[in-house]
Amino acid sequence: MPKVLIVNGPNLNLLGIREPEVYGRVTMEEYLERLRRRYPDVEITFFQSNHEGEIIDRLHADGFDPGLNGIILNAGAYTHTSLAIADAIRTITCPVVEVHISNIAAREPERHRSFLTGVCRGIISGFGMESYRLALESLL
Amino acid sequence: MPKVLIVNGPNLNLLGIREPEVYGRVTMEEYLERLRRRYPDVEITFFQSNHEGEIIDRLHADGFDPGLNGIILNAGAYTHTSLAIADAIRTITCPVVEVHISNIAAREPERHRSFLTGVCRGIISGFGMESYRLALESLL
Amino acid sequence: MPKVLIVNGPNLNLLGIREPEVYGRVTMEEYLERLRRRYPDVEITFFQSNHEGEIIDRLHADGFDPGLNGIILNAGAYTHTSLAIADAIRTITCPVVEVHISNIAAREPERHRSFLTGVCRGIISGFGMESYRLALESLL
Amino acid sequence: MPKVLIVNGPNLNLLGIREPEVYGRVTMEEYLERLRRRYPDVEITFFQSNHEGEIIDRLHADGFDPGLNGIILNAGAYTHTSLAIADAIRTITCPVVEVHISNIAAREPERHRSFLTGVCRGIISGFGMESYRLALESLL
Amino acid sequence: MPKVLIVNGPNLNLLGIREPEVYGRVTMEEYLERLRRRYPDVEITFFQSNHEGEIIDRLHADGFDPGLNGIILNAGAYTHTSLAIADAIRTITCPVVEVHISNIAAREPERHRSFLTGVCRGIISGFGMESYRLALESLL
Amino acid sequence: MPKVLIVNGPNLNLLGIREPEVYGRVTMEEYLERLRRRYPDVEITFFQSNHEGEIIDRLHADGFDPGLNGIILNAGAYTHTSLAIADAIRTITCPVVEVHISNIAAREPERHRSFLTGVCRGIISGFGMESYRLALESLL
Amino acid sequence: MPKVLIVNGPNLNLLGIREPEVYGRVTMEEYLERLRRRYPDVEITFFQSNHEGEIIDRLHADGFDPGLNGIILNAGAYTHTSLAIADAIRTITCPVVEVHISNIAAREPERHRSFLTGVCRGIISGFGMESYRLALESLL
Amino acid sequence: MPKVLIVNGPNLNLLGIREPEVYGRVTMEEYLERLRRRYPDVEITFFQSNHEGEIIDRLHADGFDPGLNGIILNAGAYTHTSLAIADAIRTITCPVVEVHISNIAAREPERHRSFLTGVCRGIISGFGMESYRLALESLL
Amino acid sequence: MPKVLIVNGPNLNLLGIREPEVYGRVTMEEYLERLRRRYPDVEITFFQSNHEGEIIDRLHADGFDPGLNGIILNAGAYTHTSLAIADAIRTITCPVVEVHISNIAAREPERHRSFLTGVCRGIISGFGMESYRLALESLL
Amino acid sequence: MPKVLIVNGPNLNLLGIREPEVYGRVTMEEYLERLRRRYPDVEITFFQSNHEGEIIDRLHADGFDPGLNGIILNAGAYTHTSLAIADAIRTITCPVVEVHISNIAAREPERHRSFLTGVCRGIISGFGMESYRLALESLL
Amino acid sequence: MPKVLIVNGPNLNLLGIREPEVYGRVTMEEYLERLRRRYPDVEITFFQSNHEGEIIDRLHADGFDPGLNGIILNAGAYTHTSLAIADAIRTITCPVVEVHISNIAAREPERHRSFLTGVCRGIISGFGMESYRLALESLL
Amino acid sequence: MPKVLIVNGPNLNLLGIREPEVYGRVTMEEYLERLRRRYPDVEITFFQSNHEGEIIDRLHADGFDPGLNGIILNAGAYTHTSLAIADAIRTITCPVVEVHISNIAAREPERHRSFLTGVCRGIISGFGMESYRLALESLL
Repeated sequence: MPKVLIVNGPNLNLLGIREPEVYGRVTMEEYLERLRRRYPDVEITFFQSNHEGEIIDRLHADGFDPGLNGIILNAGAYTHTSLAIADAIRTITCPVVEVHISNIAAREPERHRSFLTGVCRGIISGFGMESYRLALESLL
Repeated sequence: MPKVLIVNGPNLNLLGIREPEVYGRVTMEEYLERLRRRYPDVEITFFQSNHEGEIIDRLHADGFDPGLNGIILNAGAYTHTSLAIADAIRTITCPVVEVHISNIAAREPERHRSFLTGVCRGIISGFGMESYRLALESLL
Repeated sequence: MPKVLIVNGPNLNLLGIREPEVYGRVTMEEYLERLRRRYPDVEITFFQSNHEGEIIDRLHADGFDPGLNGIILNAGAYTHTSLAIADAIRTITCPVVEVHISNIAAREPERHRSFLTGVCRGIISGFGMESYRLALESLL
Repeated sequence: MPKVLIVNGPNLNLLGIREPEVYGRVTMEEYLERLRRRYPDVEITFFQSNHEGEIIDRLHADGFDPGLNGIILNAGAYTHTSLAIADAIRTITCPVVEVHISNIAAREPERHRSFLTGVCRGIISGFGMESYRLALESLL
Repeated sequence: MPKVLIVNGPNLNLLGIREPEVYGRVTMEEYLERLRRRYPDVEITFFQSNHEGEIIDRLHADGFDPGLNGIILNAGAYTHTSLAIADAIRTITCPVVEVHISNIAAREPERHRSFLTGVCRGIISGFGMESYRLALESLL
Repeated sequence: MPKVLIVNGPNLNLLGIREPEVYGRVTMEEYLERLRRRYPDVEITFFQSNHEGEIIDRLHADGFDPGLNGIILNAGAYTHTSLAIADAIRTITCPVVEVHISNIAAREPERHRSFLTGVCRGIISGFGMESYRLALESLL
Repeated sequence: MPKVLIVNGPNLNLLGIREPEVYGRVTMEEYLERLRRRYPDVEITFFQSNHEGEIIDRLHADGFDPGLNGIILNAGAYTHTSLAIADAIRTITCPVVEVHISNIAAREPERHRSFLTGVCRGIISGFGMESYRLALESLL
Repeated sequence: MPKVLIVNGPNLNLLGIREPEVYGRVTMEEYLERLRRRYPDVEITFFQSNHEGEIIDRLHADGFDPGLNGIILNAGAYTHTSLAIADAIRTITCPVVEVHISNIAAREPERHRSFLTGVCRGIISGFGMESYRLALESLL
Repeated sequence: MPKVLIVNGPNLNLLGIREPEVYGRVTMEEYLERLRRRYPDVEITFFQSNHEGEIIDRLHADGFDPGLNGIILNAGAYTHTSLAIADAIRTITCPVVEVHISNIAAREPERHRSFLTGVCRGIISGFGMESYRLALESLL
Repeated sequence: MPKVLIVNGPNLNLLGIREPEVYGRVTMEEYLERLRRRYPDVEITFFQSNHEGEIIDRLHADGFDPGLNGIILNAGAYTHTSLAIADAIRTITCPVVEVHISNIAAREPERHRSFLTGVCRGIISGFGMESYRLALESLL
Repeated sequence: MPKVLIVNGPNLNLLGIREPEVYGRVTMEEYLERLRRRYPDVEITFFQSNHEGEIIDRLHADGFDPGLNGIILNAGAYTHTSLAIADAIRTITCPVVEVHISNIAAREPERHRSFLTGVCRGIISGFGMESYRLALESLL
Repeated sequence: MPKVLIVNGPNLNLLGIREPEVYGRVTMEEYLERLRRRYPDVEITFFQSNHEGEIIDRLHADGFDPGLNGIILNAGAYTHTSLAIADAIRTITCPVVEVHISNIAAREPERHRSFLTGVCRGIISGFGMESYRLALESLL
């Protein structure tokens, strides 16, 4: 049975509440349930943290697991400031797909540079919550 | 029956021949066949040109068609130099998804800036030929 | 009888349709008719293309004609990316006036740099369709 | 009867004397006379100052007058350094047209950035003294 | 009874010890006592952390409380590097005032850019410990 | 009896009229009256000019007065372009507090750099007209 | 018998007419004749276009021909703006030599960056029309 | 008996596993053992964390200990992004030596800027694990 | 009898008072007296203003006088911000020598760029008040 | 009999030894011999130095000789750092051709800027040792 | 018996005299004596020159000697301006360690970029004269 | 008897020959003679070299001589590239005055930055050969 880990970064615990005109009104919990219903054969684990260090710890903990098909990472603002998460991705052996809910290229300039894209397998950005599903598709 | 147009930009007529270590050995024709087999209910039209102006002409011709679900655009090098294609995308009413075969963020600096991302619905980059399929998924 | 050539660049075939809040709802054809009615003594030729190369070809074809009073050029997005059109202007002997419908200085940063202004006789920008008429005035 | 105010900035009191190869040999007084003869139905007021503050004072004084069709502003070197004049233009209700005698884009780099263009209605640049007449046309 | 939360970022637990020629010799505890004595009718809560993630967690925890008049945030060095804290401020509904003890504009260049100022209600910087009292005044 | 001088720069004579969605609808005269009523024991002098030179002259005239508690300076657009006012502040002995009505960090990029902040005692920005009162508090 | 293809880009159809103080008074046709007379054993094919897309098409058409000794490319202004031509050069198997008639390093800054040099075999620049002959020498 | 603290930053818990062609195959534990055997008279404490905040906490906890000869800090990726750790180093009284296993100057551009070097006593970089021993030598 | 005009810009009316560790303790009046005693045969006129516009007015008023040997200009902070004074210098026919009391290259970066140097005859900087005398020597 | 001087800069005395994968395995001595055999009618002088000053001295010594057809200069790393050699080239009357063995545009960014190209007659780069022969051809 | 060469660049002949608050009061001769006493089994050769070319010559002369353990290079100001010395280091086979007496990262910005670090084995900077000893340790 | 040393840098041995429209037609020898005649009581020594290292050697040799009033340095192109000469000036105790014959601010951009100005006592630039005399005046 395929296994996938979804990791969400800072402020994404407020999905559905935070700037709904940008991020929509669905909470992550509701979306995960839909996803699991649609992909009943995939084991989807979920982790969220506002702490850069905890995200790195989690990538280390799961990122060498040969049974894991891939990690879907929405690092939020850390996408643009964390070289340390980029290093963690480069270190682990499991493929990582970068996702963004909004189209970051259409937002403020400080969100145009990503430390992560270069070390991820690929990027999916701008499809709302569906970005997660497309990433999952890419890993199966 | 859903309809999708795939537009490929300069040098992508040589897919399968051009730098195979970057772009793989599958030609676009072979890939399209696979795609049409997998999505028999979707009408997939294909257009390729090395001419910036022809790509704009084609976007104008099809981009106001209410029966078209979306356009999947791999603009190749024009991604990084053509403000005119960006204007065309902004003008038409049909959603456009930007795709790239390779992970452009992991390549040379002059390929890091995209004129198109900000005016497209979203971007999918780095999944090899599968980038086209994920884009198709996103439009259905 | 004075002769003037108006050259429009990419996406300007959609004037009246494209982003009407920026460019207004008058089509170029309607505007040309008005212009010709107002200046019955001037022979106004019109050319539009989405192709950088065709614009250059046209500038070459007409730009050495001593009977032509001037060329009014709205190069659209090529204003900001085409050094080749700038070279064509520098080469021909006929005066060229750069026009823009919207005030490009009040728009996105990538529209602030013009390759053409330095090689044109002058620039008229921001007066809506009336920019063409003012340019015509300047050439008579 | 339509009313227009022409405002000239620093060093433009020396028109006809200053760098004649760039600005020509006609003085502003001579040119104004011609302009008034050609547009006998327009009340043309004129103001020149080398003082940034006086230009702002004048824009404040006349810029809310509903009877004024528009202001033609050649701010000279303040075009490139005065954010305060830009603020004044944004504040007043009367439309302002930016004019330049020479083609500033063909001159030194420090003359390429204009603080004013973005807040003016439009720009007319490079037609010698005729730039004033074209601006006047645009306001009628 | 009005309620205010003061949040201090990294290294500010050492106030009174750390570079006293820049930050003074009063500890935060001593200053808080003074502040509470001067504003006996205001409930002043205080939180300090060297962890970016804990500051975000705390902003989330209290930032939707309608009974909270505002948050006074001295994010220390995170002011200049944390886009994630900026996102948290944008997300919560409670007004946030940015304070700095020293005049950051008079210090090293890497302290001149603030990620936070644009999303805060206002900034108060350079008044020593009194910066906190002025921020409190602004929220009452 | 404490004495404070408030100096307002260019276009601030139009407070209450100019861009009210940014600066509010209260005129400076109305606000000063309120301020004087609230601080009856403070002698508040006021000066406004659109002229960079007059602001410098005034800073020189009052800035060495040992009886003056401080100067509250809202230099408007000169904040971003006048090194000469910065020099005047550095020269005089009286403390100067920089204030802004709007949050300049949330506005256009050319308003992000301040020549003055580094030589002022502190900055208070973004609290509407209350920025003046907070500055006054800081000087008492 | 060795075969060489010479490809000229935009505006180079006007050689001998265009800015003769920079490019000389010899037309390309005259020069080609001289070249063929001097190298009677070499088959020299010639192609010129003002269209970026046509240049790419031609490079694709001939660039895999094992019987072609090399391509001499003077891409004119596309040298500085066309990443798509650079991609075409990288794709084809035939060696390409970049030539320029004038010394581009001694001209305007926007002509200093070449997208092509890094993917060509070498560059020959500044020797007038003789640049073509030297390139031909390098391919034999 | 001299005392030294070694602090390792993010991803360095994977030394010996992570990118061995860059960092070698020796784990930190193995190396520490060797170091303690070679310097039996030095008390070597070790701390690793992926959390920026925990590194700051630890620097605060030990950095004022007069019995500590010095701190050897390999901050990993935080070297290039953490102004907060730099502030912590500036605050504490114990000397800090910056070390890197690989030669960071020979790696990617975003690893060329160090926030820490300017506030450390010195830097030792590029000698593999031996960088730690040389740092230790420098503190004795 | 040779005639020289000395023009001092903003804040230089406070020479001898302003930052004496940078500018010394001699007032301009005292220095002028010494200068006139040393050069009894030279008519030395002096003008100071804090107003950019007044400096321009004065340059216009005297700058075409064929009997004037030259103008010695210490434009203070306007050196670095006034393109309008640069234009005035370019316009007038009398040679202008730029002087600075302190060595501006050894000061803050925003004082390193001079708008004036390129249009002056020469520059003398860093010799304290003696800079004026050396400038006078250069004009005789 | 035509005369040509070849000048080689720093580290080029190690040609054939230094980085042979970049520069090849032929020594300069061997190559010169071949060149002299192929061009028996040309007097080829050779000079190499690692000293910037000696290169300038040599350019001065030979660069005014009317009997010298030209100088072929491979300035090695001084190409990118020596404005003084550029000045020497501008001063002398003999034409100078810049050559490079490798394609410098395909190497590290600090090798992309050349101080010399703008003052040389032309540049030949990327043809291995044959670059010297092509340069010689260009001078005959 | 191990052999090490120490190379000192410009102005380092004045160690002990030059800016003693930065470089200390010990001359290189005194320090070398100490070093030789401490490492009696190592043959330490020393070379100093103010000439970039002589440093390159010396690196060539000794840098291929298989009996030399390494070169300790303090290139002084050439560290920041000499690409030619960097090329020499890349060419020779002997390992080179870069040392600096002061912490260059804590000094002026033009001393932050090093051309040498990327091609040296490692860097040791900021430990005063002891930097040489640590470098020696690293080579043994 | 006062003593002054004049040091000229690269290419200045060709004064009178080199680009006479920039530097004039007087040789340094002729000028020195005039200078010595005009200042018979001053011992004027002269040194010229094209070698950066020799200039440093000479500054070291004479720069600590208490009997030397000062050094007049025209470092030519090294002004803009030699940090090592700047270090030498900082090291020696004798005052150094930087001179330039032409107005370097009116020339190419790469001549606008001077490494030397910040460490010299002052700068005199743009007065032709008279720059040397003015520098001499400043040292007496």
